[in-house]
Amino acid sequence: MGKIVCGIDIGGTKINTGLMDSSGNVINNVKVPTYASEGPDAAISRIIKSVEDVLKLSNISIKNISGIGIGSPGPLDTEKGIIRKTSNLPGWENVHIKDIIENKFKIKTTLDNDANAAALGEYLYGTGKGSKAFVYITISTGIGGGVVLDGKLYHGINSNAAEVGHTIINFDGPKCNCGNYGCLEAYASGTALAKFAKEALDNGCESMIKSIAGPDPVSAEHVFEAAKKKDKLAVKLVENEAFYLGIGMSNILAFYNPEIIAIGGGVANAWDMFIDKMLDTAEKRSLKPIYDACRIVKAELGGNVGLIGAAALAI
Amino acid sequence: MGKIVCGIDIGGTKINTGLMDSSGNVINNVKVPTYASEGPDAAISRIIKSVEDVLKLSNISIKNISGIGIGSPGPLDTEKGIIRKTSNLPGWENVHIKDIIENKFKIKTTLDNDANAAALGEYLYGTGKGSKAFVYITISTGIGGGVVLDGKLYHGINSNAAEVGHTIINFDGPKCNCGNYGCLEAYASGTALAKFAKEALDNGCESMIKSIAGPDPVSAEHVFEAAKKKDKLAVKLVENEAFYLGIGMSNILAFYNPEIIAIGGGVANAWDMFIDKMLDTAEKRSLKPIYDACRIVKAELGGNVGLIGAAALAI
Repeated sequence: MGKIVCGIDIGGTKINTGLMDSSGNVINNVKVPTYASEGPDAAISRIIKSVEDVLKLSNISIKNISGIGIGSPGPLDTEKGIIRKTSNLPGWENVHIKDIIENKFKIKTTLDNDANAAALGEYLYGTGKGSKAFVYITISTGIGGGVVLDGKLYHGINSNAAEVGHTIINFDGPKCNCGNYGCLEAYASGTALAKFAKEALDNGCESMIKSIAGPDPVSAEHVFEAAKKKDKLAVKLVENEAFYLGIGMSNILAFYNPEIIAIGGGVANAWDMFIDKMLDTAEKRSLKPIYDACRIVKAELGGNVGLIGAAALAI
Repeated sequence: MGKIVCGIDIGGTKINTGLMDSSGNVINNVKVPTYASEGPDAAISRIIKSVEDVLKLSNISIKNISGIGIGSPGPLDTEKGIIRKTSNLPGWENVHIKDIIENKFKIKTTLDNDANAAALGEYLYGTGKGSKAFVYITISTGIGGGVVLDGKLYHGINSNAAEVGHTIINFDGPKCNCGNYGCLEAYASGTALAKFAKEALDNGCESMIKSIAGPDPVSAEHVFEAAKKKDKLAVKLVENEAFYLGIGMSNILAFYNPEIIAIGGGVANAWDMFIDKMLDTAEKRSLKPIYDACRIVKAELGGNVGLIGAAALAI
């Protein structure tokens, strides 16, 4: 089985903890709710218990674990292993999570942001294998990214590189959650897609999105479902989504000149619905030798990419 | 004096050839016209003669040269040392310049694009010294860029990384020379600034830009000169220029999270006229930890940066 590492993927709603072997196979994993609003202490207690649980479940002693990796929403101080302050974990500020976990288990622990961790996981065990310049993008409520160059995560000067969601595709664009205007995230995240749909419905647009959503707030999934049924508004919204993503790809291509861009996250589940228009836009809006040198693909690892990536940090 | 290297900076109008010592001092250099339209053979003859001339001028034997570096407009095949096809050198296509120079002088020769070469020069001998993540931007007729990460030029998968001029800041923006729309270059290059000025004048705007330009076509320099004299149109155009550059900086910051961004090229000569508004825009439009971690400065090396960079390729 080789070396076994432990990964902890901290999300806004749940924490996914698991053990992974050196081939990237998840041996066992357990999910616990984050309940971020209860504060970091309660969540850290749940994290520690989940590590103990997954060890027990796998019949593996803590002595056989060669490292622990933690993926968390940023911004972080990755060198010191501190979660600074993040909108996804309200009330958390300057949480020295690396020290706490390291002291508890006496095992070397590494912290990195969730998109970086996922990028590393997808690079090592998914679509990025062996590539020299690899970019991973996750599109769900927000848009995050991570970059692996020559086999190493590229962090930038203070671990904030590849903030793809907050690159500007139109300086006159709509307001983003970050306070800026015209960010890719404000145009092409799942949240943005749902918002554009809601705006159209509020303006009296006829669409089955309404009946699909029922009493629930409109979501990106509702839009994709309606588009599958050829609903006119939904089809147009998904076309726009694909266009915005294509522009985002053009900028990724021009900056990094990557070999592979892999797209993961919830929105990637609707791959077939946006890929053609997205690629067409990216091609039209890019320098030819840059576009031609890159493959843009759907990420392979799926739901456990965050966990696998977190564990990969410990390798 | 240590090792001596030879740099050849090929531009659309002139070729600058020189010898450099290991401290980045140019011993001697000679400039010859490119006359690109005469084709590559004639230009290469001039290049070879200019290398011989600069050796003679410096009283240095070819045997004492440890390497030759060539900076050229792209796209290139840097591994094979081929100039592919570039709008700046009309009629040049698949010029095996590395082989030709290497065979002539029997000295290891390295080819890279001009912006990459300048980035390396500015990193080694200018504002970038010792920085971990360094971005160099040149703003003149076009906008180019180069990135030095952990002391090494970052090339991407086929040497086209950091095409900063062709990143999109507004997908609905004006047409760029590259055929795309809304590129940073279409908004903020010297050419774009001159074009915006000409459009305003053609629309009947009153401005001293006209009299400053006289019989010549309006240039960015004319706009800066008029702005210095508080000409209303020119001041507004320079303000816009600063805003667009600020948006460009935001995207560079979000992608690379650099320690230093250095700005060179002709437009940088008007530094004092755009720096405040540019920095203000970049700060407002960036995530705080990313903006705070970076210094945005005027490049130090000036007119010989291309030559020094080309020579630095040979180190």
